[in-house]
Amino acid sequence: MQTIALLSGGMDSCVLLAYLIAQHKDTAALSVHYGQRHVRELDAARKIAAHFAVEHHVLDLVCLRPLLKGSSQTDDAVCVPEGHYAEDTMKLTVVPNRNMILLSIAGAWALSRGATAISYAAHAGDHTIYPDCRPAFVAAMNRAFGLCDWKAIRVDVPFQFMSKGEIACLGKKLQAPFELTWTCYKGQERPCEQCGACQERAEAFGCAGMRDPLLGKESR
Amino acid sequence: MQTIALLSGGMDSCVLLAYLIAQHKDTAALSVHYGQRHVRELDAARKIAAHFAVEHHVLDLVCLRPLLKGSSQTDDAVCVPEGHYAEDTMKLTVVPNRNMILLSIAGAWALSRGATAISYAAHAGDHTIYPDCRPAFVAAMNRAFGLCDWKAIRVDVPFQFMSKGEIACLGKKLQAPFELTWTCYKGQERPCEQCGACQERAEAFGCAGMRDPLLGKESR
Repeated sequence: MQTIALLSGGMDSCVLLAYLIAQHKDTAALSVHYGQRHVRELDAARKIAAHFAVEHHVLDLVCLRPLLKGSSQTDDAVCVPEGHYAEDTMKLTVVPNRNMILLSIAGAWALSRGATAISYAAHAGDHTIYPDCRPAFVAAMNRAFGLCDWKAIRVDVPFQFMSKGEIACLGKKLQAPFELTWTCYKGQERPCEQCGACQERAEAFGCAGMRDPLLGKESR
Repeated sequence: MQTIALLSGGMDSCVLLAYLIAQHKDTAALSVHYGQRHVRELDAARKIAAHFAVEHHVLDLVCLRPLLKGSSQTDDAVCVPEGHYAEDTMKLTVVPNRNMILLSIAGAWALSRGATAISYAAHAGDHTIYPDCRPAFVAAMNRAFGLCDWKAIRVDVPFQFMSKGEIACLGKKLQAPFELTWTCYKGQERPCEQCGACQERAEAFGCAGMRDPLLGKESR
């Protein structure tokens, strides 16, 4: 086993898995239920892992929810903001220290089984909203992961300088199963097409000259 | 709220709490059950938090156990090594990436409630066995915690250059309730006095010119 990939069930982590596998990296996937509103993502993650036939561990950390106040994703008192992803209101969707928690657990699993790397799908479009997707954060985590054990592990973030549109293009080339992914923050029956995540997804498919297969099904 | 302290229930984290409170720091405590063998520590943590009348959150993360293979503390296939703490066999007690996981969760809680610091009781005696207690690791985590959110939080490790004996001396001065603490890795009815943790505890009390109150009770 070489790499543990964080798999949220969204389109970016789906392309990440496709990308690692296309490079013949022996990969396992980790998904975490930390109390997020959009648990449909986890069903999506299961289907994506099954599609790629990779080992998949889904961890139930709902008990963290009381410690993750102030985010629309984990705190019922905070509504999911509508509007474009680039707007300041989207900062309400930041789950406090989420990526460090997920990476630290992925790192523990990696060390337990002799994997040498962990990977997540942070991208350039995330940088203005999500502090724990920024290259400086990735660099700091790499330093910490070089010291947390007697063996170092590496944090690979292959999309950190790519836009979500470029990730969609890559996924198209790699035939990533976008029809299995879930993005909408509201987690209802179908994508709301209003939240920032839905809008960003639509733009990404637009860049790749694709129709979103989740919406396509309905409009046929 | 200023500081979230990791409280294992051992003597070091008990003195840490005494130390933070003596400095009039508004402190809350976090304890985590990650599947460790010595769950008696968690009862000790509850009693210590009650003694200091601080808010205390105990998180049940036993579901992490299958991901934490290879440590005597979380893997039944690995026996608790006996012998002195300084011996190489004690590396079997390292729980993979434990401190990064615990710190990342403490950091999330700190960010959720506007605390500005997190603290843990790593000390100089830990450095040769536990990589995630070394000053270089602490420095790397401080850098990561400065970037994981739009507000920075600080990792305070006040005992990082002190020996366990010096911590025991400090605890004596601060009247830390050592009788409530639990150290033994085996987690049986009474301390085994054989494991590295028991031996190190005995040496620390020796340095402080104290009798271990847990053993004292029996010998009276």
